[in-house]
Amino acid sequence: MHVIELIQKKRDRQPLLKPEINYLIENYTSGTIPNYQMSAFLMATCINGMNDEEISWLTDAMLYSGEVIVHEAQGAPLIDKHSTGGVGDKISIPLAPAVAACGIKVPMIAGRGLGHTGGTLDKLESIPGFRCDLSSNQYKAQVEEIGCVIMGQTKDIAPADKMLYALRDVSGTVESIPLIASSIMSKKLAEGIDGLVLDVKFGSGAFMKELDKARMLASTMVTIGAHMGKKVSACLTNMDQPLGTMVGNALEIIESIDILQGRGPKDSLALTVELGAEMLMLAKKASSLEDGRQQLEESLSSGRAFDKFVSMVKAQGGDIKYILEPKNFRPASQKIVIESPDNGYICHLDSRSIGLAAGLLGGGRYQLTDEINPSVGLEIHAKIGDWVNKGQPLCTVHADEKGVAEAILRIKKAINIVSQPVAKPALCKDRISTN
Amino acid sequence: MHVIELIQKKRDRQPLLKPEINYLIENYTSGTIPNYQMSAFLMATCINGMNDEEISWLTDAMLYSGEVIVHEAQGAPLIDKHSTGGVGDKISIPLAPAVAACGIKVPMIAGRGLGHTGGTLDKLESIPGFRCDLSSNQYKAQVEEIGCVIMGQTKDIAPADKMLYALRDVSGTVESIPLIASSIMSKKLAEGIDGLVLDVKFGSGAFMKELDKARMLASTMVTIGAHMGKKVSACLTNMDQPLGTMVGNALEIIESIDILQGRGPKDSLALTVELGAEMLMLAKKASSLEDGRQQLEESLSSGRAFDKFVSMVKAQGGDIKYILEPKNFRPASQKIVIESPDNGYICHLDSRSIGLAAGLLGGGRYQLTDEINPSVGLEIHAKIGDWVNKGQPLCTVHADEKGVAEAILRIKKAINIVSQPVAKPALCKDRISTN
Repeated sequence: MHVIELIQKKRDRQPLLKPEINYLIENYTSGTIPNYQMSAFLMATCINGMNDEEISWLTDAMLYSGEVIVHEAQGAPLIDKHSTGGVGDKISIPLAPAVAACGIKVPMIAGRGLGHTGGTLDKLESIPGFRCDLSSNQYKAQVEEIGCVIMGQTKDIAPADKMLYALRDVSGTVESIPLIASSIMSKKLAEGIDGLVLDVKFGSGAFMKELDKARMLASTMVTIGAHMGKKVSACLTNMDQPLGTMVGNALEIIESIDILQGRGPKDSLALTVELGAEMLMLAKKASSLEDGRQQLEESLSSGRAFDKFVSMVKAQGGDIKYILEPKNFRPASQKIVIESPDNGYICHLDSRSIGLAAGLLGGGRYQLTDEINPSVGLEIHAKIGDWVNKGQPLCTVHADEKGVAEAILRIKKAINIVSQPVAKPALCKDRISTN
Repeated sequence: MHVIELIQKKRDRQPLLKPEINYLIENYTSGTIPNYQMSAFLMATCINGMNDEEISWLTDAMLYSGEVIVHEAQGAPLIDKHSTGGVGDKISIPLAPAVAACGIKVPMIAGRGLGHTGGTLDKLESIPGFRCDLSSNQYKAQVEEIGCVIMGQTKDIAPADKMLYALRDVSGTVESIPLIASSIMSKKLAEGIDGLVLDVKFGSGAFMKELDKARMLASTMVTIGAHMGKKVSACLTNMDQPLGTMVGNALEIIESIDILQGRGPKDSLALTVELGAEMLMLAKKASSLEDGRQQLEESLSSGRAFDKFVSMVKAQGGDIKYILEPKNFRPASQKIVIESPDNGYICHLDSRSIGLAAGLLGGGRYQLTDEINPSVGLEIHAKIGDWVNKGQPLCTVHADEKGVAEAILRIKKAINIVSQPVAKPALCKDRISTN
């Protein structure tokens, strides 16, 4: 077997065999295959694609390039959720404890934000003291004791994926369904889960702009799950406008607390319930999606979900006085209200621009080493389809010194108002599952 | 401009602009763009191709990455010939002096063999003392004084091509018409020529097996020439069997001397005349191909071509007693005759296998650092379409110690004999020119 022959095979649209994919991943991880050969292979894959078997083998090879966690204690099924990333998407934070409160274990390994999307870990770290860098033993113990955990990828989880992800970023090979799907699935399957619910975003604020591509990504990941003997289902959800009302780190924790208390904005509350119901279905804890939704709503309204969240934050070193009394979060130094320039219906609320605006204020990261300001962000007062009067607040900008003027300019550009009524976009467009 | 965006453009089948191609080549040559980004770009080009403008700009950028030779003295037009490489293809060696003897200047920069094909420089270096490493001043002076030179690429000629060629070799991106065409043309145009005749090979012993692909490569190079204001024409010639009778380094010099004296095998003599006639046409030294052929034949039969060769060898430090009396070349220690196993017609004479056999004997190079044995090789006694009797010699193997058994096995496999008559393949299949 020779790496050049394998590159040529993919270049010439011939499918690779399992030992060939293993050879590539093992030798790349060990440093035998240099970056310039792997990037040629990644580009060939980006253009020529992979069949379902190749994608499963690639996932498998990346998964077994590192530690696959084994949860020794039996009992409740282990179910996780993954979102492909959006703006204002804080759902993992209320969802993990809300589902854990229904008797399921949620061993979530989450990521950081990059570009216009926020990261679950960055949001959680706005709670003073909160630690995302647990060891795998601490992680397993917390799943066992509390039922949920949200932490970062350790260096032992899917190291091949870490290397490939970094190379894709600098070689123009990010936008590839086989590469995205295998990257997500290798990390998630390393958690030692029984099932996984995927929230695959489409629309202006998603990495996959078109519904068709999002559907293809979703079904690719569901198929990988099936090959791996895992239950996987996917929801295709709209990311044409930000999710909920808050965009920013501490701000999204505050909205998460609202959701955990059964309040919270309609859309983010509904998505928490919907994804939670899917998780209960995979765990066979719900007889139907409707039953699942009811259990979730009960978990939130009863306070059990919130209590679970408090336990999780405490276990991970977070200061719970911020959770119990969100007013303790340091507010940003300025609040600038953007008012509607006209009477009319909100037609566009471009979430990519809004995500970038939050980033400009210091809430996001453009390079991996950028520091995050937890206090800044945006509060959105009107969503697509809403009627607004001239002068009515559309958005409140929470800012310190950084990037204020440019952020405001971007936000103003991101919001479009028209005189004709506009339909409110459906949040969940479709579901895909193994069955 | 950012390299990742340019890689993505090519990945997404969008044509690049001239400043974008310049940016890539300049920054790769200077070391700013790393190999792993360039190999991703090369793979995207390999799969998605380039349009004629992009190929011309790429050629231009590689050409001007180094020295473009300017021949100060006016007078005779400067015309060169390039072959895409084959087995037994020694035509450059008799052709350059034969055409120079007709009053044209031939400033040839040639290459070394790799894999199953021989290299013009390796063949010339079997003449004791012959030097291929002239400076560009020596090169220009020799063109001026003698009218022809055959030397190697200096480090100043198209350095971007040198780097890209090495990267293509290890990244599975060799087989790409835009990349092959721009590589050849950037080197050839750096010679400061007025016109170029291309001998584009197709068939089992060529890099392009199919006639269609060879035709596409030929017309791509002719188009590049036109964009650059140079006269370029191409002949598509058959490489299903070795050219001439000799395959090996000193052996091919001996055959070249035969050609230069108007003897030599029919096919290699005919191809020398044909390519020479094309060169005279480009130089406007011949009124028609027929006129050109007559001038070439006269150059060979009169001894003027041979005299020019002697002058060239002398100027480049070669010991002319080997040229004047080829018996002085050290013969290989063994001559093994392979006899026909049957009565019949030669049907196949696989040139790739024969080239590899010559390599196994020590006549070729598998890595750039391999030493070449000038004495070894093959002498072919019957070609496709010839009738042979059982026991009649098909081939004489000139061998020292190395690789004898395996070479003989390969040669026997390479020759097929059938009872039905077989047509002799036409050597020149087609011509392509700017007009």
